[in-house]
Amino acid sequence: MQSMTTSRQLSTRHLLGIKDLNEDDIQLIFETADNFKDVLNRPIKKVPSLRDITIANVFFENSTRTRLSFELAEKRLSADTINFAASSSSVSKGETLIDTVNNILAMKVDMIVMRHPYPGAGIFLSKHVKAQIVNAGDGAHEHPTQALLDAFSIRERYGDVAGKKVAIIGDILHSRVALSNILCLRQLGAEVMVCGPTTLIPKYISSLGVKVEYNLVNALNWCDVANMLRIQLERQDIAYFPSLREYAMLYGLNKQLLDSLDKEITIMHPGPINRGVEITSDVADSHHSIILDQVENGVAVRMAVLYLLAGTRG
Amino acid sequence: MQSMTTSRQLSTRHLLGIKDLNEDDIQLIFETADNFKDVLNRPIKKVPSLRDITIANVFFENSTRTRLSFELAEKRLSADTINFAASSSSVSKGETLIDTVNNILAMKVDMIVMRHPYPGAGIFLSKHVKAQIVNAGDGAHEHPTQALLDAFSIRERYGDVAGKKVAIIGDILHSRVALSNILCLRQLGAEVMVCGPTTLIPKYISSLGVKVEYNLVNALNWCDVANMLRIQLERQDIAYFPSLREYAMLYGLNKQLLDSLDKEITIMHPGPINRGVEITSDVADSHHSIILDQVENGVAVRMAVLYLLAGTRG
Amino acid sequence: MQSMTTSRQLSTRHLLGIKDLNEDDIQLIFETADNFKDVLNRPIKKVPSLRDITIANVFFENSTRTRLSFELAEKRLSADTINFAASSSSVSKGETLIDTVNNILAMKVDMIVMRHPYPGAGIFLSKHVKAQIVNAGDGAHEHPTQALLDAFSIRERYGDVAGKKVAIIGDILHSRVALSNILCLRQLGAEVMVCGPTTLIPKYISSLGVKVEYNLVNALNWCDVANMLRIQLERQDIAYFPSLREYAMLYGLNKQLLDSLDKEITIMHPGPINRGVEITSDVADSHHSIILDQVENGVAVRMAVLYLLAGTRG
Repeated sequence: MQSMTTSRQLSTRHLLGIKDLNEDDIQLIFETADNFKDVLNRPIKKVPSLRDITIANVFFENSTRTRLSFELAEKRLSADTINFAASSSSVSKGETLIDTVNNILAMKVDMIVMRHPYPGAGIFLSKHVKAQIVNAGDGAHEHPTQALLDAFSIRERYGDVAGKKVAIIGDILHSRVALSNILCLRQLGAEVMVCGPTTLIPKYISSLGVKVEYNLVNALNWCDVANMLRIQLERQDIAYFPSLREYAMLYGLNKQLLDSLDKEITIMHPGPINRGVEITSDVADSHHSIILDQVENGVAVRMAVLYLLAGTRG
Repeated sequence: MQSMTTSRQLSTRHLLGIKDLNEDDIQLIFETADNFKDVLNRPIKKVPSLRDITIANVFFENSTRTRLSFELAEKRLSADTINFAASSSSVSKGETLIDTVNNILAMKVDMIVMRHPYPGAGIFLSKHVKAQIVNAGDGAHEHPTQALLDAFSIRERYGDVAGKKVAIIGDILHSRVALSNILCLRQLGAEVMVCGPTTLIPKYISSLGVKVEYNLVNALNWCDVANMLRIQLERQDIAYFPSLREYAMLYGLNKQLLDSLDKEITIMHPGPINRGVEITSDVADSHHSIILDQVENGVAVRMAVLYLLAGTRG
Repeated sequence: MQSMTTSRQLSTRHLLGIKDLNEDDIQLIFETADNFKDVLNRPIKKVPSLRDITIANVFFENSTRTRLSFELAEKRLSADTINFAASSSSVSKGETLIDTVNNILAMKVDMIVMRHPYPGAGIFLSKHVKAQIVNAGDGAHEHPTQALLDAFSIRERYGDVAGKKVAIIGDILHSRVALSNILCLRQLGAEVMVCGPTTLIPKYISSLGVKVEYNLVNALNWCDVANMLRIQLERQDIAYFPSLREYAMLYGLNKQLLDSLDKEITIMHPGPINRGVEITSDVADSHHSIILDQVENGVAVRMAVLYLLAGTRG
């Protein structure tokens, strides 16, 4: 970890969205994550870097993988952690978000990792409280660490993100993963396409410099990497939402379709997978898939983000 | 922490209520908390004092701030902690309280921090099991660490508690905070007044040596410190309970009212605040308010309590 | 702990059921647990043995005592632990068990302690993922660590398990505790009898080499040890299930019955106890009962299992 005692710093003290990061920031996160990935492959997977830091994981929405990934990242940095889940919280007692967080901060917490159902909750909070905030997903807005780990995984597969063609396929409208991915990949010089049913692609999306495609085969023929977004089962009630069967037929990826392409492409998925909906099992478990690498890289990337944000303090 | 290797000890091995503490005990807790507050303001906020102690946080009622505060206090003392929440517990399987706690103790747990909906649950338990018990709230009975942190915060503001005039305002009838505060403040030589709607002030209260007042302005004119109790929204169904709007009009504290007094008073609140009910935002966020100091002091006071109780063992 | 740096190893790298263990394995677990029990009785109850190991406790069913016992065992071995409860998990989002566990493993988790409502869930998983699995209860199938701690407690009481007569009394049909106990006790050379209502004793049970008895007094007169199984209150809806009152009358153990025997027997119960149903309070709290020893031994036995399984890695 010698190389980490560098004077390079992030240009932001919060990670509210990919919008906060310039290209140097992202490259610094990736290089730091490279180091932490080495650590995670050693027998002793722990470093003492943040042993003087207390981090609160404040989740106003259920989450398994993101919370576990952050919690492991924190523990492997030797931070003290506390978990705050909304279901058992004062929020239901009518307390404001600012009061809840100020209370946590008054207990000498240094950093808040927050998931919240409202877009912009982290941004709002960062203007009113004195902690460093890491956005772990705010409604349909941003999920910056997911985008960073996705781009990191593409870089790992291809050596570089610049110039790669990435198709993001599925429900773009409701997806914080899509928006953060677009911003991150564009920042790093990738070409990005979104693909999905017309009702699930917002009109403004082309203003972000991405191609729009409604046909899955065209998208697959174009791309190097297909990031298959999860269909939220709980959205099946929405009138303009396709049924699962309809979606699987038009936008589900199976082995036959993958084999029909005249090239190798890489398959990503942010999880949890609905096997047989977004992708079939033979695709998910094939050598095309880097889905479990994404999960593995998530811990290293989150360690890098927390470590570098701590470095911007005082 | 040199000064902590003193031979002074608490006169009790449990903290079931303020009733267990004499004035020396309270002063010892405050002096110890002074030391821990210094620790919490250092970059490394941890001491190894209780690294050979295991503490179980046994919460039969939801609580965010109290549980987090105890958990942080324990972690900063390097204790091992386990959390036991009633919702996922054997209690719903028909096990008795004594059996549940004896099971936890058989796993070599040294101390139990317990919140329970029934008044006296901790006292009952202390007579039947072999652990040290810290009462983190037992129904409408006592909440001793809250009273200690409240008195500690008044001492911090004024140098001393003796002789100060403290008005406790709100729902006295259902409040464990009120009862513990009265006992603690009286023990330390403060004058105490309770103020609230007639239906929410129990008849026996004056036997505790407190003044009773039904008019908010009179109470504010009398006091140095106003401790504004939280109105429990879930009690709105009770017939003799005022509506929130009615309560806010008669007992809510706003800036105009505060400015109309011919002196400075200090505002406290145990949280979570219903902004616009007990106090308006301009009061909560003014320099009169020491609400966030209370939260900060809570961790130091709880560290002191746990540390000193551990010192009474064996 | 010198004696633990032995070259003796378990013959299995998972603990899916007692079926995985030969007699040498069980004796090795017991001898290792003896050492850990000494550790747990020292002021410092922690050893650094597993500080390079991360263990995920994955509970698809509620459990208090088993989860706490494993969590304490892990912490006292200095392992890093993460908890994953099904209620807040992606399982409800339609993810497969293999995907859920592979995701946890991708975060560099070494061992999975799993409770699952389906019999064989751990066996299935061990064939499809790369982690070491410890079965903490799979439906009505096995609960191997419970059986080990039960046998360890009998050995502690009598010096040896071989030749002892153990009656397992209650709902044998739905009990993973019964099945694992039978396999473990038979492996160690004990004689085993099951006793309960005819509707709650499966026909195949005698093929496991156990006696079957429907009369409680006969069973008590035969045995050295009576393991009184818990009646699951949630099964009261099942048509062939006796009512609690009926059960208590026919199979409940009280002091009078115990005193009427012409010998001393030892009473066990896996908890949580329904006082007045399986056993009365005077029996539960008598010197016959080793119920709290079972709980205490549970932590030492689980430490031994985790420690020895870790020793089979690479």
